[in-house]
Amino acid sequence: MNIEIITIGDELLLGFTIDTNAAHLARELAAVGIQIVRRATVGDAAEGIAAAVRDALDRTGAVITTGGLGPTSDDLTKPAIAELFGRSLSLDQSIVAGLERLWKARGRPGPLPATNLQQALIPQGARVLVNRHGTAPGIWLEDERGRWVAMLPGVPREMRGMLADELLPILQERAGPAGHVVRSRTVRTTGIAESQLAVQLGELARGAAGLPLAFLPGFDGVDLRLTARDMSPADADAALASGVEQLRARVGRFVYGEDTDDLADVVLRLCRERGLRIGVAESCTGGMLGARLTAIPGSSDVVDGGVIAYDNRVKQALLGVSETDLRESGAVSEPVARQMAAGVRERLGTAIGVGITGIAGPGGGTPEKPVGTVWTALDLEGSTRTTHTIWFGDRDEIRRRAAQAALDLIRRALT
Amino acid sequence: MNIEIITIGDELLLGFTIDTNAAHLARELAAVGIQIVRRATVGDAAEGIAAAVRDALDRTGAVITTGGLGPTSDDLTKPAIAELFGRSLSLDQSIVAGLERLWKARGRPGPLPATNLQQALIPQGARVLVNRHGTAPGIWLEDERGRWVAMLPGVPREMRGMLADELLPILQERAGPAGHVVRSRTVRTTGIAESQLAVQLGELARGAAGLPLAFLPGFDGVDLRLTARDMSPADADAALASGVEQLRARVGRFVYGEDTDDLADVVLRLCRERGLRIGVAESCTGGMLGARLTAIPGSSDVVDGGVIAYDNRVKQALLGVSETDLRESGAVSEPVARQMAAGVRERLGTAIGVGITGIAGPGGGTPEKPVGTVWTALDLEGSTRTTHTIWFGDRDEIRRRAAQAALDLIRRALT
Repeated sequence: MNIEIITIGDELLLGFTIDTNAAHLARELAAVGIQIVRRATVGDAAEGIAAAVRDALDRTGAVITTGGLGPTSDDLTKPAIAELFGRSLSLDQSIVAGLERLWKARGRPGPLPATNLQQALIPQGARVLVNRHGTAPGIWLEDERGRWVAMLPGVPREMRGMLADELLPILQERAGPAGHVVRSRTVRTTGIAESQLAVQLGELARGAAGLPLAFLPGFDGVDLRLTARDMSPADADAALASGVEQLRARVGRFVYGEDTDDLADVVLRLCRERGLRIGVAESCTGGMLGARLTAIPGSSDVVDGGVIAYDNRVKQALLGVSETDLRESGAVSEPVARQMAAGVRERLGTAIGVGITGIAGPGGGTPEKPVGTVWTALDLEGSTRTTHTIWFGDRDEIRRRAAQAALDLIRRALT
Repeated sequence: MNIEIITIGDELLLGFTIDTNAAHLARELAAVGIQIVRRATVGDAAEGIAAAVRDALDRTGAVITTGGLGPTSDDLTKPAIAELFGRSLSLDQSIVAGLERLWKARGRPGPLPATNLQQALIPQGARVLVNRHGTAPGIWLEDERGRWVAMLPGVPREMRGMLADELLPILQERAGPAGHVVRSRTVRTTGIAESQLAVQLGELARGAAGLPLAFLPGFDGVDLRLTARDMSPADADAALASGVEQLRARVGRFVYGEDTDDLADVVLRLCRERGLRIGVAESCTGGMLGARLTAIPGSSDVVDGGVIAYDNRVKQALLGVSETDLRESGAVSEPVARQMAAGVRERLGTAIGVGITGIAGPGGGTPEKPVGTVWTALDLEGSTRTTHTIWFGDRDEIRRRAAQAALDLIRRALT
């Protein structure tokens, strides 16, 4: 099945928003053997939307749009496409009732504003795609020749949910038994630079199990992605499994997970298995490590919390860091990282204490301790290990890398 | 001047690469008054490239492509478009010489491989766009009717350099001195829903000062963006200034900044002016508020730090929250939020203490306290205000919105 995607919005055309929906749609559809043959972006003007949809229908007869379904006057996707199909719009009372329920449930004052009713206007003969993550429903519209347009919202979370819940099942049913697919698997590494990783991989750096390999460096480390194309689902899965196994064997302990695995989640699972609880003491990361850990649902069975010891007074008052060490070794030093880890562990009564202290920049660097210098300490039931790294990048990158490295210190201690 | 952009590459259609070139081109061109009216993405197939370029030439006669200029067999942009224009390709000996020099300078063994010569094939009558950041030159091709295609490389760094060095000067010359521009300004609001904002804006919801208005809802609130098109730079700036003033007057205290302003930065500035320091006590946000504040360079002159009181034991031990209140009112309650704010303020000795406690989900909700329930308290030198909100969205969204709302509580107390 070949389809075209049209993403709609002035903000996309003007470059204010980078179009991540198109890439997400393409990956999800490719994984089930549906091919995007063309993609277009148009602004919030009815004629432009209609023209792009008409052209795409003439070529492939199968179109997914994103955006322009909301309650404001620049949301023109539905009327433009309904007119193209020669369908009138009418209020769907069950959607109106749902919008009113939500309005009340959110404790908003007064009746539902009339502008919101725009979202309940449904083209004659359309199928409604339920939005479980927002208010604007999606629309499936099909003509007598079997040509169709699926209209999804532009908000990425809503689009993703509706794609998975509503649209993919329809498309898979129409596509029939799966043909050739494009699938990929990713091996996630951290704590090793891209160039070192290439050396360690040797001939696998070019690919494994006949599949090409891509290096994708990011804040969290380097992802290794293998991609199988134009293969049956079974062949693709078998080649990917073999390739992943080869990569894992070569990269060893630098691998922390696969695909969308988050190192914070990996660490929580390791702690949960062992019944260990975590306390964090953060200076330069300012709460980022705590935020990463608590971003995972159910983290409360492992994470107690911790101290954001940004100022030295907090390091002393809440963590018991020695004033002498702060003065003599400086806030960014091994003894201070150690005392932060031990201090939070002791005060919270957790098995694990983590201390992070560093210079995130852009100011504050010295020749001895340049911007990017980070000391991290892990106190695991009284036994402490520390790491010292000079990270490169801007403030945000240094902080992200430091939080990831602290998580990796826990992972390595527990595996 | 209206143009269309065509980005070329299987990796874009398959979603493995997010298309950042299109957004960069749009912003750079809009700023000098050139408008992108449509954008398309096609794969690495000659027919698809030719068809998309032909359609765009028929519509606007002015096309920029990115990608498909490299030395490999899937780089088909040049031959496909040359054939469309009825031009033959021939080797440009000065480009060949340049490629050979570079090959030697990089210490590569043997003579330049024949595949690399593909980059030196230039369509008859084309103008070469020099690539100072890579090897593949760009191409400017124009027909007898003045319709043109500019072919840029796909590697973002090379594309950006060639756009600035080579293409923009050509386009500005063709656009003439009129210099109509597309410019925009954004008014950032928080604490008000998109639909309520539309009601409050009244007739301004459609636009202000003759400029159309876009509503851009996000985790941090709703951005209102006015865009001036087809105006002189002076007229655009005047209309935007007037429009922004009208929006600000109507939206009032919900406005926290403009364009790329970050509420955390706004709060830090307000505190700095008054010599106030901040301590945070976070439960459901788990460090996110601290991370937001300390993400801003120089935040150490305002932020002391705080306590991540994820577990109730931490709320008691480090913040002095009453066990009775925890038991009787629950961890997510007004008294606990108040005591968290007061507790962190007292222990850190700061003027401001902020407490956040809520249910981020997906588990933990009850009929009385559904997922999304958040209590926030601000203790400003002993005077406390609290807010209670039920946020919608997933765990990440609820936490982000709660952190943003806590920042806004500080902003409102100080303005």
